[in-house]
Amino acid sequence: MTETPPRATGEVALVGGGPGAPELLTLAAVTALREADVVLYDRLAPPVLAEFAPQAEHVDVGKRPGHHQLSQSGIEALLITQAQAGRKVVRLKGGDPFVFGRGGEEARACRDAGVTVRVIPGVTSAIAVPAAVGIPLTHREVSRMFTVVSGHAPLTAAELDHLAGLARTGGTLVILMGVLHLAQICQGLAAAGLPPGTPVAIIEQGYSPHQRLLTTTVASIAVTAAEHAVRSPAVIVIGEVVRLADQDPAAAADLHRAADLS
Amino acid sequence: MTETPPRATGEVALVGGGPGAPELLTLAAVTALREADVVLYDRLAPPVLAEFAPQAEHVDVGKRPGHHQLSQSGIEALLITQAQAGRKVVRLKGGDPFVFGRGGEEARACRDAGVTVRVIPGVTSAIAVPAAVGIPLTHREVSRMFTVVSGHAPLTAAELDHLAGLARTGGTLVILMGVLHLAQICQGLAAAGLPPGTPVAIIEQGYSPHQRLLTTTVASIAVTAAEHAVRSPAVIVIGEVVRLADQDPAAAADLHRAADLS
Repeated sequence: MTETPPRATGEVALVGGGPGAPELLTLAAVTALREADVVLYDRLAPPVLAEFAPQAEHVDVGKRPGHHQLSQSGIEALLITQAQAGRKVVRLKGGDPFVFGRGGEEARACRDAGVTVRVIPGVTSAIAVPAAVGIPLTHREVSRMFTVVSGHAPLTAAELDHLAGLARTGGTLVILMGVLHLAQICQGLAAAGLPPGTPVAIIEQGYSPHQRLLTTTVASIAVTAAEHAVRSPAVIVIGEVVRLADQDPAAAADLHRAADLS
Repeated sequence: MTETPPRATGEVALVGGGPGAPELLTLAAVTALREADVVLYDRLAPPVLAEFAPQAEHVDVGKRPGHHQLSQSGIEALLITQAQAGRKVVRLKGGDPFVFGRGGEEARACRDAGVTVRVIPGVTSAIAVPAAVGIPLTHREVSRMFTVVSGHAPLTAAELDHLAGLARTGGTLVILMGVLHLAQICQGLAAAGLPPGTPVAIIEQGYSPHQRLLTTTVASIAVTAAEHAVRSPAVIVIGEVVRLADQDPAAAADLHRAADLS
């Protein structure tokens, strides 16, 4: 007597890969990678996949020169067709999938297609990269709120006005993907009343061997960024908490150890 | 010939424990727990410690009835004396240690005392708990920023004004520890111009078997919270992204699976 095994049921997991250090993956992310038949990735380096998902097919859907490119709708179609073919699909994203990761769109596309989808949150770079240089986004009697904003496109006057207003009350601002429009954003914040002496930290390539911290002020940021040839990826922090950054290289090295376990 | 083994060097790790599901611990957190001689905790349940740090002394420094209580300065003193005694100390915190966790203060106290301290970021409830019910804090053409604010103390008029202003431009607001002052915050936001029909989600006890999602509006939130006897801990999300919450219980169960692996 033989039995036909039940047909495998495909599914999609949107997995937060954290800020780049393999040790900052969650246990749930590692489990999902180990069980994956196929992994769609665009930001995390292949060594992570080799370590945690050696059995899976790896598809680079990122937009880098010389690599296979897929539009957002192409990525969503691939997630769906792979899951409908019965495969366990991991969509691996840097940071958290629901923070500027278009994870919301991908989850919706899967559900609209009747594909089971789950979300595995990750450690976001917006919080972890400042922490890597000793900057807490909140600090008693300094800041009791923080705003994370995409600098990918220019901000509107109303947005700049209220961001500057919150910063004046002590709120911390964190800008992701902001290198290109950094001067415009800071000029806009200053024009909206943010004091020019407000401290700014630029943390380039967080959780990599090339991590670099620059501290400056709102008034000087454009000059600082140009002088030091700041490039993406970088996390920008604006507010008094920047003064808590650890400038002691030895102590900073200790703080960075969580990133060095790879 | 005998050698005296080198004296053990103590250190403190401030470890983010994530939103409560053991599977959302990072690999670095698990390693720190496994190597710990003593763990100071106040929010995560003892089962996590039994699983990942059975060898360590467990000290509950939380402020719950019938338990040992320590002031913030008492906690900092204990971290320092334990590390100075050569022990590996883990300070386990819910979520991320640098988001309303007083981690910045504890890191500073350790460094001021000459104690090596490192920070292991965690998955913050501010992002992960909304994700557990399908709410992305950012979503293309809906929201490109989010603000996380502590509702532990009443907000000022200036803060309410700019928070309402950002929400009007499409920004998402996330309130942690806000159950007690929920009515005051929402009345203040409405008075500052936030449209009364703006959607609100209350996610109670995220990543627990008792997780509950309530959706309402800014105008109705006080009534909703009272009718359903909302209690802490709860994460409150205000903004159009709330409309993306998954209301289908079956699909929601899938989304929650990351929390059920314990």
